[in-house]
Amino acid sequence: MIKKIPLPAVSRLSAIYRLLCDLSAQGVEFVSSAALGEMLGVGAHNIRKDVSYLLETDGASAKNGYDVERLKGQISRALGFDTEFKACVVGLGKLGLAILRNELFFNDKMRVVAGFDSNINLVETIKVDIDVYPSFDITETVKRLDVKLAILTVPQQFAQECANRLVQGGIKGIVNFTSVVIKTEPFVKVRNVDLTSELRILSALVSLDENSNLT
Amino acid sequence: MIKKIPLPAVSRLSAIYRLLCDLSAQGVEFVSSAALGEMLGVGAHNIRKDVSYLLETDGASAKNGYDVERLKGQISRALGFDTEFKACVVGLGKLGLAILRNELFFNDKMRVVAGFDSNINLVETIKVDIDVYPSFDITETVKRLDVKLAILTVPQQFAQECANRLVQGGIKGIVNFTSVVIKTEPFVKVRNVDLTSELRILSALVSLDENSNLT
Repeated sequence: MIKKIPLPAVSRLSAIYRLLCDLSAQGVEFVSSAALGEMLGVGAHNIRKDVSYLLETDGASAKNGYDVERLKGQISRALGFDTEFKACVVGLGKLGLAILRNELFFNDKMRVVAGFDSNINLVETIKVDIDVYPSFDITETVKRLDVKLAILTVPQQFAQECANRLVQGGIKGIVNFTSVVIKTEPFVKVRNVDLTSELRILSALVSLDENSNLT
Repeated sequence: MIKKIPLPAVSRLSAIYRLLCDLSAQGVEFVSSAALGEMLGVGAHNIRKDVSYLLETDGASAKNGYDVERLKGQISRALGFDTEFKACVVGLGKLGLAILRNELFFNDKMRVVAGFDSNINLVETIKVDIDVYPSFDITETVKRLDVKLAILTVPQQFAQECANRLVQGGIKGIVNFTSVVIKTEPFVKVRNVDLTSELRILSALVSLDENSNLT
């Protein structure tokens, strides 16, 4: 029987998984829900509740806490981290290129198989191991290569149009690096990450704070 | 007289600023609060409210909407985007290096002046134009160079320790790229950005959805 997992739990379990990877790299064998909660800034009971959503779960032994390797495997299986996804990068600016060149934050289960840019000259001259295509080929190419995830790093004004083409091509999930809130079908999952704004917000908070200009 | 600006408004104004930069690049001269709201997925009234927090504001003329260049300048001055900040990157993995090499999402007002890593060999052999130092020099170096912002891209288990050293050195703002919730002084602003987890969450949402395994 398959348990339903609410979004906040999915999100926390992903963070827990990342912590477990680090712990296992350090050779740590057991970790308590309290220790995990401490690292994630939530209560131990949240951690235990999240873990209880896993398909197979034997909980933590009061004495040793969770078996790091076993819990890692359980989360990975429950959230489908073992499933390999084909991804594409739309918009080959600095960020897009860094992602395309796999220089950033990829888990080995996410394979970038295509890049897209509206600049034909760039598409023709760019030096990367991954095939790049002009943006007007998005729908057809995504369909043909059976790409399920897309990373959107285009200028704001092209965000919605590119998202539409991606969805028409069968994309199921989009990481949106633009400031634009893209509208799409309910079955398409979107995660918004706006790095530039994060940095701007931070500098704003700091300078406003120095001028005691922030509530 | 200085107006107080609540955090959500700071955050939206930063996004508005980014949109205005794109619009001005396209040669657009005027934009309505409705159009801005549409792009950001909020109501026109939110946009007008946010703009009303600006120190100098002449609002939008009902006919033309906001003057793109003028509003850009007003936001930039109000949020201190003109103030140049010295930043440092702590943890020189793929992401840290990409940021250090200024390959990512930097506005020209944020100048990266130092990099830190606990791996001495890396620090001695790395090829970058920016000075890099061993992590144990964080506090002293940040103080000496008067660095105010830090970008934290270290493994989870070093996040809190590095944050402490940064704060001791006088850091006012931290962009935290780790999954760890770092504890710090109230006067230090922290923005959390967890790229790896964002991508994991997305793939989880997609595969859970395919197994209709998500509430």
